[in-house]
Amino acid sequence: MAVAELTSPAASFAHNYNNANRLRSSQLYAPSSSCLSSDHFRSRYRSTVLPRITCSVNQVQNSAPVQVEAPKDKAECYGVFCLTYDLKAEEETKTWKKLINIAVSGAAGMISNHLLFKLASGEVFGPDQPIALRLLGSERSIQALEGVAMELEDSLFPLLREVNIGIDAYEVFQDAEWALLIGAKPRGPGIERADLLDINGQIFAEQGKALNAVASPNVKVMVVGNPCNTNALICLKNAPKIPAKNFHALTRLDENRAKCQLALKAGVFYDKVSNVTIWGNHSTTQVPDFLNAKIDGMPVKEVIKDDKWLEHEFTEKVQKRGGALIQKWGRSSAASTAVSIVDAIKSLVTPTPEGDWFSSGVYTSGNPYGIAEDIVFSMPCRSKGDGDYELVKEIQFDDYLRSRIAKTEAELLAEKRCVAHLTGEGIAYCDLPEDTMLPGEM
Amino acid sequence: MAVAELTSPAASFAHNYNNANRLRSSQLYAPSSSCLSSDHFRSRYRSTVLPRITCSVNQVQNSAPVQVEAPKDKAECYGVFCLTYDLKAEEETKTWKKLINIAVSGAAGMISNHLLFKLASGEVFGPDQPIALRLLGSERSIQALEGVAMELEDSLFPLLREVNIGIDAYEVFQDAEWALLIGAKPRGPGIERADLLDINGQIFAEQGKALNAVASPNVKVMVVGNPCNTNALICLKNAPKIPAKNFHALTRLDENRAKCQLALKAGVFYDKVSNVTIWGNHSTTQVPDFLNAKIDGMPVKEVIKDDKWLEHEFTEKVQKRGGALIQKWGRSSAASTAVSIVDAIKSLVTPTPEGDWFSSGVYTSGNPYGIAEDIVFSMPCRSKGDGDYELVKEIQFDDYLRSRIAKTEAELLAEKRCVAHLTGEGIAYCDLPEDTMLPGEM
Repeated sequence: MAVAELTSPAASFAHNYNNANRLRSSQLYAPSSSCLSSDHFRSRYRSTVLPRITCSVNQVQNSAPVQVEAPKDKAECYGVFCLTYDLKAEEETKTWKKLINIAVSGAAGMISNHLLFKLASGEVFGPDQPIALRLLGSERSIQALEGVAMELEDSLFPLLREVNIGIDAYEVFQDAEWALLIGAKPRGPGIERADLLDINGQIFAEQGKALNAVASPNVKVMVVGNPCNTNALICLKNAPKIPAKNFHALTRLDENRAKCQLALKAGVFYDKVSNVTIWGNHSTTQVPDFLNAKIDGMPVKEVIKDDKWLEHEFTEKVQKRGGALIQKWGRSSAASTAVSIVDAIKSLVTPTPEGDWFSSGVYTSGNPYGIAEDIVFSMPCRSKGDGDYELVKEIQFDDYLRSRIAKTEAELLAEKRCVAHLTGEGIAYCDLPEDTMLPGEM
Repeated sequence: MAVAELTSPAASFAHNYNNANRLRSSQLYAPSSSCLSSDHFRSRYRSTVLPRITCSVNQVQNSAPVQVEAPKDKAECYGVFCLTYDLKAEEETKTWKKLINIAVSGAAGMISNHLLFKLASGEVFGPDQPIALRLLGSERSIQALEGVAMELEDSLFPLLREVNIGIDAYEVFQDAEWALLIGAKPRGPGIERADLLDINGQIFAEQGKALNAVASPNVKVMVVGNPCNTNALICLKNAPKIPAKNFHALTRLDENRAKCQLALKAGVFYDKVSNVTIWGNHSTTQVPDFLNAKIDGMPVKEVIKDDKWLEHEFTEKVQKRGGALIQKWGRSSAASTAVSIVDAIKSLVTPTPEGDWFSSGVYTSGNPYGIAEDIVFSMPCRSKGDGDYELVKEIQFDDYLRSRIAKTEAELLAEKRCVAHLTGEGIAYCDLPEDTMLPGEM
């Protein structure tokens, strides 16, 4: 059975619907093989270096009368998710929303291993939102990615209706309405931030092009792989068809950590802390803002009357958290990073509580704070819950906050010069003064 | 400020309530140190071998006028969770249920690393159920456990109100209303099932005694550490004050995997598969029941007309899943195991859908199927959602199912003889015929 290539979520829905009806007309059916055969894989990707993928798990010695071929979708569907289904005909799913496609890069990594199960459980997009996961791995990780897909199968999440895995962003990002870009090369020994900007920048330039070519034109993009601000800038510069406003660099874990440290210092539970902004770069120049933050509705400076702590120790505590965690736990903070990605998405798909805001690294052009245009800078945002956001206007500044914002702004402008060759703005010139990677960051 | 030791959840609530009021009467307060100091730890546990625990993260150089001592609770509270709070006074939490204590052993392991964040997010017990996590680690894992607690802090879960960590079950299990016993010694090379029964049996005998002594008298106990059926039996025999009915051995991952394999074979989405029972031991003698299972409301045998597959390949596919996953993913199935623990708990705290059931390893005495009394055997259960369950009566048996049930029953009776020294029933006599550990199981 040949299946037409999909071009939009609506087409995808129709595809599944029609296909299900066709299948139902036969009495008994079964997939010829539910897993990815080595030959199938090689021919899809025209790769000669891909290792042999064994098929011991799902290979069905089929004696059923009707054989169904694996659908010829853009990326490889996996196992039980290759089976068609019929959302419309299911009485209990009539109140469900239209299926959305969520692409995730670095899908075989530890952050994704937490995040994917949260997405599939309905925790992020709600109990009435069926989802399709489109998972991008690498040749090295494709077997692990199959393992992830198997665990997603075994979890029986009712809302998870499709899982596709692949190693080509142009296939995996097809029709994506959300792109969560987690995969990046980790910083090995001796690799400086400038090197990493170039290595990972190339990945994000390529993924920007792929999003531009095949994703939904209003795709929301969340960049987690570091250096995430400048990666997000590179990505958006390579995706001119997608509004620059749709790109986010994740600074939510920093915000969450800042809230926790303020709570600890003030001796209150963390749910009393609000209006915390992380300004600028996701690096050691970042500025956790205590001037505008509130505890129990009161300005932080009226509750924590310890300027020395606020001006010196607070920022350090937020920034050293990742390194301290690695020391304790032996690995980087995958679980809480995944939670912060969930928080960041939820902040865009649910209305922001009255009077509060959230931090996200977003495009600066047109910002009301006088921050340089045309970079990705973490700033305070508010959302109506429609996936979009606006910058918060009622923000106070003092000399201390201004001077620290200027420093992180200068760093991001320097990073931008470093990657000019990747943003289409000429020849790169790299003069980063120091290593500002956050401790414990990959 | 000295704080009285807690003896019940109600007392705990009052403690927090009163303490919060006391704290509020002072203008400014902060914990003297939010993390566990090495000296403090040593004196609590009277241990000389505990490694030095560094305190670089949360140690506050405090200049606040009022110092608050770390509460002298039964287990060590962690960081921000040592801070008091006032549920009653919070307008928005007035509709919340009473806080429940959830104890988790093996809390620094990978399964727990998924499970704890699901518990804390409200996914398991609901959005109106505040929880306290009481985490049991070992001397070897206590630092990692601090790392887990730090990530829980940074996740800002509103429902997570207390986190205690410790290495003594008699402290950590205090007032537990749920005990999720995940920790067990993994099976190293050359260790047979009989050896593992003895090694882990001793752990579960001790934890049974601890639950008996300090947990809530109606605590629900879910045993995940293997060999889980006999571990659960040992645990319940050492906890005579707790109803034997309250002990469960986890076979839900097997049930989920069986559902997925039936869906794959029938070519339907997994939400069409119901009434799947796993009978017996969580080992290779387990019996995934296709006689009573249904696909789209029809008996499986009417949909999958392939007896050879059902009688031979189906069980093998379910059992080999864990091993296949390790091959692909390089580690055991932590994420989907955590999902199945969530499913198992939810099956007890939400009413079972009309006509369906779920599998759990439970105490056999009084069972309607003629299975030997006084063992822990996976059987079909139904719940009203009150934490309790009843066995399903309308079950069909045929000779094939009876003979396979007899085999897994014989194995569990043999395992019981192996651990007689741990259940208080005399001298152990171990004649396990073969190694029946599931592939890929720890």
